[in-house]
Amino acid sequence: MIITVTLNTSIDRTLFIKDFAWNKTIRTSQNVLGMGGKAADASWVLGELGVNNLATGFAAGDTGKLMEKMLLQRGCKTDFVWVNGETRTNIVVIGENGQGQSTLVSNGLEIGNRNVDEFKTKFTTLLQKASCVLIGGSIPKGVDISFYTYLVRQAGSAGLPVVFDASGPGLKAGIEGKPTIAKPNVDEISELSGENVTTIESAYRVGTELHKKYGTMFVITLGPEGALAVLSERSYRIPVLKVPV
Amino acid sequence: MIITVTLNTSIDRTLFIKDFAWNKTIRTSQNVLGMGGKAADASWVLGELGVNNLATGFAAGDTGKLMEKMLLQRGCKTDFVWVNGETRTNIVVIGENGQGQSTLVSNGLEIGNRNVDEFKTKFTTLLQKASCVLIGGSIPKGVDISFYTYLVRQAGSAGLPVVFDASGPGLKAGIEGKPTIAKPNVDEISELSGENVTTIESAYRVGTELHKKYGTMFVITLGPEGALAVLSERSYRIPVLKVPV
Repeated sequence: MIITVTLNTSIDRTLFIKDFAWNKTIRTSQNVLGMGGKAADASWVLGELGVNNLATGFAAGDTGKLMEKMLLQRGCKTDFVWVNGETRTNIVVIGENGQGQSTLVSNGLEIGNRNVDEFKTKFTTLLQKASCVLIGGSIPKGVDISFYTYLVRQAGSAGLPVVFDASGPGLKAGIEGKPTIAKPNVDEISELSGENVTTIESAYRVGTELHKKYGTMFVITLGPEGALAVLSERSYRIPVLKVPV
Repeated sequence: MIITVTLNTSIDRTLFIKDFAWNKTIRTSQNVLGMGGKAADASWVLGELGVNNLATGFAAGDTGKLMEKMLLQRGCKTDFVWVNGETRTNIVVIGENGQGQSTLVSNGLEIGNRNVDEFKTKFTTLLQKASCVLIGGSIPKGVDISFYTYLVRQAGSAGLPVVFDASGPGLKAGIEGKPTIAKPNVDEISELSGENVTTIESAYRVGTELHKKYGTMFVITLGPEGALAVLSERSYRIPVLKVPV
């Protein structure tokens, strides 16, 4: 069974609008609720695909309950540590006239040391039934960044493949734990390596260096350029699929 | 018992941000859930004040359940007609640097004729325990605007005082039913009367005319100028209260 770990659970509410201006009532043409949090989102997709998986992490409040219900409705299993506060609702605003999109993000979970300890125990138990561990997303207030190092290491020590996807300081901490696979985008790998990765060539060079250092396979997403998978023996360029919208 | 009628129930999620720009991750400094829908919001406040009240109208989905829970937690009674779709979540974005605010509004409820009939029956029953009826907010898709005329008349025929607060075409329809009190703002009374009400003097003149026509007492809110209550015998100017924030 695949275990996904989302420390900072959230629901994404995506709104489509013509444009944003102050002091207006702005009518949304679509208002869609989706799973937030990289790892829980993976569970949601795995559930849809009928792949046996369990989502864990921290959750809170009515939004947490709704998030759990959304996962259960797709056939995922869940086992969260329930904390104070509220699972976040992030608001994704998409401009219909090609403006792009922006995300309004909030803090929500209130996590104490006791909760972290409870999660450690739960995680150890869950690893016994895991075939693969997927860890991702941001780290909530109250949890030290080094917790990602700990989690990746624990799963690795249990002999399990670990897939890791996060940004910022959390990315660095997780990579220190030597995951099997990491999926940074160009911004994230630039931050991780201290080099400005913009081309597929620089991604290959930096990815290879990082692979040597950590043993991690890096799948680097390059936006419209697709992705580059830097593995031990060889690397693969993954072109962008054309998806009818 | 005060009965409040909210046809288009909603929850308001209010986000405080420094500014809005496209293609950014924008951190919110506050993210507050409140009651939306003018009449349900009145219930929420009445509940907080310990005044016996019941909220009715149309509700749907998990957001409807959450809305109902929020009312129950404040000691309100509830008796909604449950329909398809989802009670709306309106997103109120407030600029912290004095930009003002904007509201992103959505459709959500899916109401059929059967639901409207069910509500009529419920409303007739509820009127028997009512001491006052408060009707307000927008009219959802699937409900004819004339429904406001019907509701206000039904409550008035039952000998109950009716307080009414709505915008746009719904306002006109509700006023046709001759409510006891209506609370338009200057924009709304301008639309209702076809005259451009901007000053307290013009509000008095137009309010008096409308009062003669409908018998309704108009409490016209004038923004920073406070409000003007146009009653049968006399009118009152209500200055703005200074509230420490």
